[in-house]
Amino acid sequence: MDYQRCVKLLGDSMSEECGIIGVYSSEKRELARSVCYGLYALQHRGQEACGIALSSDNKIVHHKSLGLVSEVFVDSLVNSLPEADIAVGHVRYSASTQDKSIQNAQPLVFNGKRGKFAVVSNSSIINAKQLKAGLLEENILFQTSLDSEVFGVLINKFSKNGYLDGVRHAVEMIEGSFSTLIMTRSKLIAVRDKFGIRPLVLGKIGLDDYVVASETTALDAVGATYVRDLEPGEILVISSKGLESIKWSNETKHAFCIFEHVYFARPDSVIEGQSVYKARRDSGRLLAKNFPVEADIVSGVPESANVAARGYSEESGIPFIEALTKNSYVGRTFIKPNQGQRESAVKIKLNAIKANVEGKRVILVDDSIVRGTTSKKIVQMLRDAGAKEVHLRIASPIVKHPCFLGVDMQTYNQLIGAYRNAEQICDIIGADSLAFLDIDMLEEACSNGHYPHGFCTGCFTGKYPVEMDMKELDKQFND
Amino acid sequence: MDYQRCVKLLGDSMSEECGIIGVYSSEKRELARSVCYGLYALQHRGQEACGIALSSDNKIVHHKSLGLVSEVFVDSLVNSLPEADIAVGHVRYSASTQDKSIQNAQPLVFNGKRGKFAVVSNSSIINAKQLKAGLLEENILFQTSLDSEVFGVLINKFSKNGYLDGVRHAVEMIEGSFSTLIMTRSKLIAVRDKFGIRPLVLGKIGLDDYVVASETTALDAVGATYVRDLEPGEILVISSKGLESIKWSNETKHAFCIFEHVYFARPDSVIEGQSVYKARRDSGRLLAKNFPVEADIVSGVPESANVAARGYSEESGIPFIEALTKNSYVGRTFIKPNQGQRESAVKIKLNAIKANVEGKRVILVDDSIVRGTTSKKIVQMLRDAGAKEVHLRIASPIVKHPCFLGVDMQTYNQLIGAYRNAEQICDIIGADSLAFLDIDMLEEACSNGHYPHGFCTGCFTGKYPVEMDMKELDKQFND
Amino acid sequence: MDYQRCVKLLGDSMSEECGIIGVYSSEKRELARSVCYGLYALQHRGQEACGIALSSDNKIVHHKSLGLVSEVFVDSLVNSLPEADIAVGHVRYSASTQDKSIQNAQPLVFNGKRGKFAVVSNSSIINAKQLKAGLLEENILFQTSLDSEVFGVLINKFSKNGYLDGVRHAVEMIEGSFSTLIMTRSKLIAVRDKFGIRPLVLGKIGLDDYVVASETTALDAVGATYVRDLEPGEILVISSKGLESIKWSNETKHAFCIFEHVYFARPDSVIEGQSVYKARRDSGRLLAKNFPVEADIVSGVPESANVAARGYSEESGIPFIEALTKNSYVGRTFIKPNQGQRESAVKIKLNAIKANVEGKRVILVDDSIVRGTTSKKIVQMLRDAGAKEVHLRIASPIVKHPCFLGVDMQTYNQLIGAYRNAEQICDIIGADSLAFLDIDMLEEACSNGHYPHGFCTGCFTGKYPVEMDMKELDKQFND
Amino acid sequence: MDYQRCVKLLGDSMSEECGIIGVYSSEKRELARSVCYGLYALQHRGQEACGIALSSDNKIVHHKSLGLVSEVFVDSLVNSLPEADIAVGHVRYSASTQDKSIQNAQPLVFNGKRGKFAVVSNSSIINAKQLKAGLLEENILFQTSLDSEVFGVLINKFSKNGYLDGVRHAVEMIEGSFSTLIMTRSKLIAVRDKFGIRPLVLGKIGLDDYVVASETTALDAVGATYVRDLEPGEILVISSKGLESIKWSNETKHAFCIFEHVYFARPDSVIEGQSVYKARRDSGRLLAKNFPVEADIVSGVPESANVAARGYSEESGIPFIEALTKNSYVGRTFIKPNQGQRESAVKIKLNAIKANVEGKRVILVDDSIVRGTTSKKIVQMLRDAGAKEVHLRIASPIVKHPCFLGVDMQTYNQLIGAYRNAEQICDIIGADSLAFLDIDMLEEACSNGHYPHGFCTGCFTGKYPVEMDMKELDKQFND
Repeated sequence: MDYQRCVKLLGDSMSEECGIIGVYSSEKRELARSVCYGLYALQHRGQEACGIALSSDNKIVHHKSLGLVSEVFVDSLVNSLPEADIAVGHVRYSASTQDKSIQNAQPLVFNGKRGKFAVVSNSSIINAKQLKAGLLEENILFQTSLDSEVFGVLINKFSKNGYLDGVRHAVEMIEGSFSTLIMTRSKLIAVRDKFGIRPLVLGKIGLDDYVVASETTALDAVGATYVRDLEPGEILVISSKGLESIKWSNETKHAFCIFEHVYFARPDSVIEGQSVYKARRDSGRLLAKNFPVEADIVSGVPESANVAARGYSEESGIPFIEALTKNSYVGRTFIKPNQGQRESAVKIKLNAIKANVEGKRVILVDDSIVRGTTSKKIVQMLRDAGAKEVHLRIASPIVKHPCFLGVDMQTYNQLIGAYRNAEQICDIIGADSLAFLDIDMLEEACSNGHYPHGFCTGCFTGKYPVEMDMKELDKQFND
Repeated sequence: MDYQRCVKLLGDSMSEECGIIGVYSSEKRELARSVCYGLYALQHRGQEACGIALSSDNKIVHHKSLGLVSEVFVDSLVNSLPEADIAVGHVRYSASTQDKSIQNAQPLVFNGKRGKFAVVSNSSIINAKQLKAGLLEENILFQTSLDSEVFGVLINKFSKNGYLDGVRHAVEMIEGSFSTLIMTRSKLIAVRDKFGIRPLVLGKIGLDDYVVASETTALDAVGATYVRDLEPGEILVISSKGLESIKWSNETKHAFCIFEHVYFARPDSVIEGQSVYKARRDSGRLLAKNFPVEADIVSGVPESANVAARGYSEESGIPFIEALTKNSYVGRTFIKPNQGQRESAVKIKLNAIKANVEGKRVILVDDSIVRGTTSKKIVQMLRDAGAKEVHLRIASPIVKHPCFLGVDMQTYNQLIGAYRNAEQICDIIGADSLAFLDIDMLEEACSNGHYPHGFCTGCFTGKYPVEMDMKELDKQFND
Repeated sequence: MDYQRCVKLLGDSMSEECGIIGVYSSEKRELARSVCYGLYALQHRGQEACGIALSSDNKIVHHKSLGLVSEVFVDSLVNSLPEADIAVGHVRYSASTQDKSIQNAQPLVFNGKRGKFAVVSNSSIINAKQLKAGLLEENILFQTSLDSEVFGVLINKFSKNGYLDGVRHAVEMIEGSFSTLIMTRSKLIAVRDKFGIRPLVLGKIGLDDYVVASETTALDAVGATYVRDLEPGEILVISSKGLESIKWSNETKHAFCIFEHVYFARPDSVIEGQSVYKARRDSGRLLAKNFPVEADIVSGVPESANVAARGYSEESGIPFIEALTKNSYVGRTFIKPNQGQRESAVKIKLNAIKANVEGKRVILVDDSIVRGTTSKKIVQMLRDAGAKEVHLRIASPIVKHPCFLGVDMQTYNQLIGAYRNAEQICDIIGADSLAFLDIDMLEEACSNGHYPHGFCTGCFTGKYPVEMDMKELDKQFND
Repeated sequence: MDYQRCVKLLGDSMSEECGIIGVYSSEKRELARSVCYGLYALQHRGQEACGIALSSDNKIVHHKSLGLVSEVFVDSLVNSLPEADIAVGHVRYSASTQDKSIQNAQPLVFNGKRGKFAVVSNSSIINAKQLKAGLLEENILFQTSLDSEVFGVLINKFSKNGYLDGVRHAVEMIEGSFSTLIMTRSKLIAVRDKFGIRPLVLGKIGLDDYVVASETTALDAVGATYVRDLEPGEILVISSKGLESIKWSNETKHAFCIFEHVYFARPDSVIEGQSVYKARRDSGRLLAKNFPVEADIVSGVPESANVAARGYSEESGIPFIEALTKNSYVGRTFIKPNQGQRESAVKIKLNAIKANVEGKRVILVDDSIVRGTTSKKIVQMLRDAGAKEVHLRIASPIVKHPCFLGVDMQTYNQLIGAYRNAEQICDIIGADSLAFLDIDMLEEACSNGHYPHGFCTGCFTGKYPVEMDMKELDKQFND
C-alpha cells in the first residue's frame, strides 16, 4: 500500500474519508466518554481532526478541533461536557494543506427551521457541484467545503414536516456514497446510500441503547453487541419510540467498496458478516496459489499487508519472516531532514531487517499499488539490505481508475497503473517480478459465501454502481 | 509480556531504563537533527522524557523536556539549536508518578572543575546509596534522583587531570550496570560496565564521524554503518585524535542482559552479531519443540511476542493467526473510563478478533510473565471471544527474582513467579495450559553460535554477575 | 466602571462588541502582519477571539482562534500566511460561557453565488430575530449565533449583480447598529449604519493603500494617517479603481454611541475630530464644577476612570492621588480562590494603597455605574484601608435603560439605576455621597464644538435613534 | 525608565532580580494557592519563570516552569498539588537568551546531608566566582548558573548540626546582596544580607501563620497583615516553636537599594514604613521645585514614571496630561516587524496622544535613564506628534556606575551617563532640556523622616556598602 490515507478532493472540496459514530441512550449518560472510545477505535479512518456533538436537555452542544482523539478529548475537556441522551462523533482525514482547517472538521451543527441538528458523514457526493450550483441560486451560501454541508442544507430545505422528512427528501437528491448520521434534539437518524458503498453497522447496549458506527471495532469499544449492518438505501430512526427502519429507495443494490477489505477497515472488523482479517488472509492465499515463485521468505509491507503476507506464507509453505519494521513513534510531526539526511530519514519510519533479508530471495506482499512511489523505495531498501531477489505480490488488482466515491485516488495521472500493465509497473518499481490478484480472485477472497451481494470495484474495473464518465470527471475536477 | 516499560526505583531513585546516543563529527554540523533521528529509533526504550546536549564552539547547550521526541523536538526548536561538533541524546522512561519531573530528564549538564560536561546514561548503580552517603559526607548535594548524577559527581571529583581521568576513576567505584556517554567540550567518551550488561554499539559515518548508541537501529537512522559493540569494561574516547580504547578493568566478563533479547530491544537490532529477530523466532521454535499442544491457531501478544509466536507456528505447523489487535492510536493520554465503562475500555487498547478465535483452540505466545495481571485479562478476553482452549506459551523462563540492574522487576512480592511454579501460575491466570522455556533453551536461542560470551540471567536464575544478596536488597529498597 | 466588557446577548445571539480592521494594498504585501498590528491596537475592544482573512491571488484564506492576538498570531503562523492584496481582521469579546466557541469567531468566510467573501463586524442588529425567521422560511440555515452571518446571508441573497449590490440591499433591511467590513476577492467594502452608532475611520498608507478600522489607534499602529470618519449611512468601496463612496440612506442622522467616549474607546483615539482623552478630562472637570465636595484626594477607578479623575482634580484643586492599583499580570486564567481566600483574592486584581488613603477623605471617580456590584466592593476596600470618607463621582449619568445597540447592558433588572435615583444607589453602594453628570454635561464634554452631530444616549435617556419599545425588547429577549 | 527589567549577568551567571515569598502554616492547607496569589502580586519583579516548592508530610515537592504565574499555575495544576505546612515561591526575570532555560528557574530543591531543602532567592553574590572556585576544588559541581545554588551548597556544607546551622555559616561567607528563603521539611528560614539591600517583609495570617515576601503587596494578596521588615543581618526562623530571630552579623548597616523606590517596587508597597508611592510623588515635587521650566503639560513615561510626573504637576501647577499610552495587551510574544514596519511597530507598544501633545510644550518625566535608547525614541515620537518643546525631567540622578548588587546595569559602556554630564546626554537624546534630581534630593524624597537608615546609592555615587573596585569588576565580568 503505497499512499497516505487522505481525503479525495473533488474540485476544491466534496469528499470525506472518515469514521463516524452515534449513540442513542434511553437515559442521560456520559455519552461524550463513550463516543470518545468509539472514535479511538475508528481513528485509523482519519487522523486530522475530530469532534463530538451532544444533545442534552433539548440543546445541542459540540466541540471539535484539529488533532487525534487522544490529543483533543483530554480528560478535563470530556469531564466538562454535559451528560446527554444522544451523541455523534467524527474523525477526519484530509489530503491537501489548505483543507486542514478547523472549518472542515465535523460534526457540523446547523440552526435550521426546526431547531438545531448535527451531521457527521463519511461520504462522497458526486453531484455536489451541481447541487451547490442550484442551492446558490436559491441564495444558500456555504461556510465549509464539505459535502456534509450540502447534505445539511438539503435536509433543512425539505424539513417543513420535521428533519426526518428533510432527510427522506435529501437522500433522493444526492448521488454518490454516503453513510451519514443526523442528530436532532430527540432523534438519531442513520442513512446509507442505495449501494451501501461506505460501511455502517448497528449495535446495542443493554436493552434500549443503540450505537451506529462505521465499523464493528467501535461497537466493541463502547461495549455494544453487533446487531446488523445497515441496508443499502435504509434510513434508520432511533428515538424514544425505539427503532424505525425506512427503505428510501427501491433501486438498491449491494456495491460495498471492496477497498475497505483491501486496506481501509481494521482487520478485527466484521463487514456484512465477513471478517476483514479472513478476507485479507484469503487474498494472500489466492495470491500464492496463482502467482507462486521460488523464494526464501515471505514478508509484508507493515502493517496493512501483513495479514495477506501470512496467507501467502501459509499457502506457499515459504516462511513468513519480517523484512521491514515500522516505527510507530514517528507521527505526523516528524522533523524534516536536510539534504544530506534524506536517505537515512526514510529508514526512521521503515527499516529493513538486514539479518532477515541478507542473501535471501524475498517475496514482498503489499495490499495495493496506487502511485507506486513508496513501493519503489522499499524494493531499493531491501536490495540495499542484501536481498538477492525481490518479488512483489499485490493482494488486489491493478488500480486503473480514479475513485470519486470516497477513496483517495484522484486522477488518472497519479495512478501508476492507469495506462500500464504489470510488466511495465514492475520495470518502474524495480522488482524481480510483480503479480496482482485479478478482480475475480479478490471478490472470491472478500465474499467467501458470506457476501453474496456484490462490490463496488470501480477503481479496478471502471465499473461503478453510479453512472459516471470517469475521464470527464477526472478532467473536470482537476484543472 | 505483561508489564509497562518503566524504570526500576531503588529506594526513591537510582535506576534508568533508557536509550542513549552520541555523535562525534569532524566538522560542525546540524547534529541536533541527527541525534533526533537516532532518538526516534530508540524511542521504544523510553517515552517519558527526552533531551539533547550539544558541544558547539567550546560551549555546551542543551534542551530537555517531558514528552516524546516528536513532541519535544519540533522543527522550529531543532532549527534554533546551534550546529555542533559533538552531541548526546537521551530518551527516558519512569515508573512512578512522582518521578515524572523535568528534573530527572537527561542529559545532565554539569559545570565542574574542568568546565562543562554532559552525561547520558542507561544504568543501574547498585551501590548508589552507599556512594551518595559518602559523597554527602563530603558536602556534595544532589538535585535529581538519577544515578547519572552520582556518576557525574564522581567524574568531577577525580578530574584533576581532566574529565577522562575522572571517568577512569569513577567507573571503578561504581557497581552495577552502565552504558554511559560523557560529552566534554572536545571529547565524546563512551563507557560500559565490566559485564557489558546494557547494550552499546559503535558506528561510523563517512571517514571520521562516529556514533555510539544503545542499539543498531539508531545507527541505521543516522546513516551510520555498524563497526562493533563496545567491550565490557571498555572506555572509548572519540576526539580530534580519532578513537582511543581503554580497558578499564581486567575482571571483565560477558554478562549481557538476556532480557534485551526477550523484550527490550527492537527486533531489527543486532546485538553482538546476533539478530534479535532471530533470537525471538528461535525461542518460539524451541517452545514449540519442547512444549507442543494440539491447537487450531498460534497467536502472539502484540507486538512484542509476535515474532516468537511465528517461530512456534513454523515449528509446529499450526497456522499463525492473530487473536488480538492493538490500537496504536491510544497513547499515554487515554481518557479514564468511569465505573460502567471499565470493561469495554480495556478493549480499546487490545481487542480480540472474534472471527479468528471463536470455537478455536488457541496457543497464545507471550515473551515473558512478570506480574501476571495482564495475562489474566487477555486469557479472559479470548474466552469471551469464544476460544475453546487457551494455551499460554512463554518464550522465556519463570521470572523468579527481582532485577536491580536495570529491568523493572522491583520486588519479590510483585513477581507472580517468585514463589510459584508453572502450574500454580496457570491456575491464577486461568489458561488451559502454561509452559515456559527453560534457561538453557533461552540461552541457546539467544546465542546460536554467535554469542559465546554468556548472559546475565539473574531474574530467571538468581545468579547475577555482580554479587548481591537479593532478598536483602529487596528488603532494603522497599520499605 | 463596574462591569466586564462583554457582548450583549439578545436571545441566544445577535450582538458583537468588537474591533475590526481592513487593509487594501495596491500591491501584494505581508498584510497579515499589518492586520495583526492593527488588532493589537484594538485588543481592548475584545479579548476572547481573533481572526484574519486574506485575499490573495483570487483566493480567500483565513485563520481564527480563541485567544489574544499575541497568543493566536505567533510569528511562525504569521510567516506561514500568504502575501495578500486585501485583508480584514477582528477581535471579539463574549459574555456567556456557551458563546465562547470558535464557531463565533470572525471573520466569517462565505462561499456564495459570486465566489468567496469575508465579513467582520461590530454590530447589533435588532431585527435579527425577525430576519432570521424569514430567512429560515427561505431554507437558509445558520451555523453561528452571529448577526454577521445574517448580514452575510442577506448580502449573498441580493448579489445577482455582484456582492457590492448585495451589500447595498442588505444594509437597507438591517435595523440597528453596524460598522462592518466585507472583503471580496477584489474589493474592500466598508459600511456604517445610518446613525453612525459604532465607530469606523478611514486611513491611508502612502499613496494608494487604505485602512479602515474601528479606532484611529489602529491607524497609528499600521503607519496610516487619518483621513476621515466614515459617514453614517455610507458605503465605502476600495478597489483597483480607488475609493468610491455611496450614500445608501437619505435618512441619516448622527447618533454616535456616547458610551464609546465614556468607556469603550482608547483614550488616544480621536472620534469625529474629538479626542477621547479630552472628552474624559472635560467630563471630570464638569463633574468637579457641578458636584464639588470637600476632600483630601481625588482618585480614579483604574484604568478607565483615571483621566476623568484628573480632570476633577484639575478643576477642584484637590490633588490626584491614586487610591487603588490594578495588577495587569492577572489575566483571564486567574486561579480560583477557595472559600477562605475569596476576600484576599479580590485584592490581587485591585489593591488599595493604604498609605494614600488612610485617614483621608477620598473622592473616587468612576466612568459609569451599570450593575453597581464592583463599586460597592471598592468603596468597602477603601474604608478597610482607612479612608475617612468616600465620595463617588460618576463621569456619566445614571444608566436607566438597557442597550440593544452593542453595549453590554442586557436587562432592566441588571441595572442598579433602572428604577433608583442617586440617593438610593448611594445607599446600596455605601458611599458617603454620590453624584452623576447629567446628560447635557456629558454631551458638552464629548462634543465641545467638534461634534455638532448628536449622540445615541439611549442607555441614559431611553431615547434611541432607532424606534424600539425597550420594555418589550427586554422582556422578549430575556425569558 | 529606559531599560527592560532584567537580571544582571556577572560572568555567565550570578545574579537574580526576582520576587520571593514563603508561607508557614500551623496546619496543613492549600498553600500552593496562597503562594500563587502572592506571586501574582510580585509578578512585576520577574516574568520569565516561576515556581513553587511545598513541604508536605515530611516530603518536599516542587513545580517550576518558564512563563507567567497565570500561565504556569493553572487551576488544574494547583488542584493537583498536595496540601502543605510550608511553601516557598519565586518569580524570575533574565536578561540573556541563553539564560532563559528551565534549569535556572527557582526554587532549587537540594537533597543534602540532612534531607531535602529548597531555596528561593533575590540576590547578587559578588564573591560567587571565588566561592565557586573554592567549591570546585572541593569537588562540588554546579548544574545551574544561579548564586542560589552556591548558597545552597554552602548551607549543606556547614549543616552537620542541621540546615539552620548551615545557613548561619553560609551567610557569613557570602558578600553581596541577598534576601533569601530556605525551606526545610519543618522550618521556614528567612535571611537578609547585613546591609538590607534587597527588600524582605514579614506578615501574619491569623494567630500562627506567617508570610515572608519581597513586598507588602504580596502580604495583601494572601490576606496577611504587615508585621515588620526583616532587619539587615537577620536570620528569622519560623517553625512549630514560633518565631526565632537571630542576628548573624554585628556589622550591619542599613543600605537599602534606593532603586527599589525609583523603579522596582510596586507603588502600593510600603518599605521600612515608607510608601513607595509617596517617595515617587515627592521625587516629582522636588524635581519641579529645583528644575522648573515653562510648559503647557506635564507627562510621565507610562507606567512607572506617572506618579513622579504627577508630583511634578502638583508642585509646578502645570496640568498633568498624558502624552503617551502604553498597550498592555502587547506581551512578550509580540510578532516581529519586517523592515518597512519597524517604525510603526514601536507605536503598538507606546503611542503618543496627538490631541494632547500637538503644539504643546511638554515636560516629560521619567524615573531614570540607564542606556538612553528608549528616551531618544520617545522624544522623537512626541516631536512627530507635534510637540513644540520636550523637556525631560528625571526623578533620579545620573546613573554613573554599574550595579553588581542586583540591578541590571551591567557595564560602564552600557551606561549613557557613565562618562557624560546632563548636557551631553540631552544632546544625544534630543530633548530641549534635561535635568536630574541630585542624590540628596532623591534621598530626601525616599526617606522623609521614615527611613533614617541610609541607602545603597552605588549606581549614582559609586559608593557601595560592600567594598568593591567597580572598574575592576566591570572589566573582569565583561571580557
